[in-house]
Amino acid sequence: MHNLPIGVFDSGVGGLTVLKALQQHLPEERFIYLGDTARLPYGTKTPKTISTYAIQAVNFLLDQGLKFLVVACNTATALALPTLRAHFPNLPMMGVIEPGARAALALSHNKQIAVLATQATVSSRGYEEAILHLNPQARVLAKPATLLVALAEEGLLQGEIPRLTVAHYLEPMLQAQNFAADTLILGCTHFPALRSAIEAVVAGRMQIVDSAESVALDLKAFLSKHPELKSQGKAVQPLRFLVTDGIGRFMQVAEIFLEAKISADDITLVDL
Amino acid sequence: MHNLPIGVFDSGVGGLTVLKALQQHLPEERFIYLGDTARLPYGTKTPKTISTYAIQAVNFLLDQGLKFLVVACNTATALALPTLRAHFPNLPMMGVIEPGARAALALSHNKQIAVLATQATVSSRGYEEAILHLNPQARVLAKPATLLVALAEEGLLQGEIPRLTVAHYLEPMLQAQNFAADTLILGCTHFPALRSAIEAVVAGRMQIVDSAESVALDLKAFLSKHPELKSQGKAVQPLRFLVTDGIGRFMQVAEIFLEAKISADDITLVDL
Repeated sequence: MHNLPIGVFDSGVGGLTVLKALQQHLPEERFIYLGDTARLPYGTKTPKTISTYAIQAVNFLLDQGLKFLVVACNTATALALPTLRAHFPNLPMMGVIEPGARAALALSHNKQIAVLATQATVSSRGYEEAILHLNPQARVLAKPATLLVALAEEGLLQGEIPRLTVAHYLEPMLQAQNFAADTLILGCTHFPALRSAIEAVVAGRMQIVDSAESVALDLKAFLSKHPELKSQGKAVQPLRFLVTDGIGRFMQVAEIFLEAKISADDITLVDL
Repeated sequence: MHNLPIGVFDSGVGGLTVLKALQQHLPEERFIYLGDTARLPYGTKTPKTISTYAIQAVNFLLDQGLKFLVVACNTATALALPTLRAHFPNLPMMGVIEPGARAALALSHNKQIAVLATQATVSSRGYEEAILHLNPQARVLAKPATLLVALAEEGLLQGEIPRLTVAHYLEPMLQAQNFAADTLILGCTHFPALRSAIEAVVAGRMQIVDSAESVALDLKAFLSKHPELKSQGKAVQPLRFLVTDGIGRFMQVAEIFLEAKISADDITLVDL
């Protein structure tokens, strides 16, 4: 069991920022990444469709052997994690929302928290619910920031266009009356790629929580408490990537998100 | 036959700019629009996947009754139109590329033509092939402009962000040595929504060809030559929209693209 890989599931490429954080904090673990690139983006789809897709993806990963599942996509976490838990009661799993919510509450002094995410994640109220469940006195303002997904995938991370686009979404939150968030959650796995543009706009006015980092730390803590799931040594087998479409494009964006080259030999095209 | 509707097929919402032009030029015709919103965008998918999706969509439209098919998506035209023609030999059909290519050659003086499109349309070389087939002496430069799709869907059509983003794609083409296009094809059905930002950047340096307009004029000419397919009177039955996911989001973007309100009662959720 302990030598099985940890599955990382995403609608496409965004989960690679989560994978990067997981590899940094858990270098002895082996990972298998599934990106449902044929059907991305999940951010504009309905809960029913997203749940159906997520179940298909997890079934496929389970057939490969799996000891733990990370749902490395905010939209899939918000809309499909309860369904996945009910469908796969014996597979321990973690989404990206609860770790981010907990990290934000730990950092925030005034417990007023801003969230940038996709439309589907915002509509799901996933961050509001997770944060208010942990602290009913907290206040949360979540806003959709769809264009940031496109900028990240395009690799347009520096300069005036990303800075103005980030400001387009953040300035109304920063200027809002009756709401003075001191903490901002990057509630979409694409957004860490734009961190420097986001920091330039925020300019010290809010602390930034990257859910990818929070998930990695939470999983590390979980594995310490569950030694039967922990890897017994250094990861020997290489990282594997499974995608449902477009290996070429996946490699191109993976380079931006992982900040590392990957080989086409490590990527397998699969049909869910 | 003549009273059957004309099917308009798109991966999502972009084809609505084509539908708008068709309605303006063919007010007596009845249209049925199918947007495969569950699986959009096609622009980042592979030819095989896009052909499979397109065949499913056209089969569904044929079951509703259809006298003509407009493939109102550049990517689907580039990658799936030959397959669709082979699969449905008795259904007359038209894509968006050939009409745009013909209109650009008619407008251009020096026969140097620039194209902005999605990555998949550019990779397909659909515009190059269509233009060079009509005029082997022409020169074509096609560039992917992925962010413009996101801007159009977000309804962010005016101001500094769309202007800078359009310039990000167009200025390198306008500054290029050894290439001086006098005509620009909007090779993605989303781009007419950004026409004023594109005109501001182009500033008279190129003429703009909107494929949506070209398709409507070509279909009008085709129907004049095929009276057996022409509607016999004013369209009485309303426009119908079929979508594979997300009626709410479809309505929201449809308002931007059609510049008109549509009612949820006119939209049906379908499973291909």
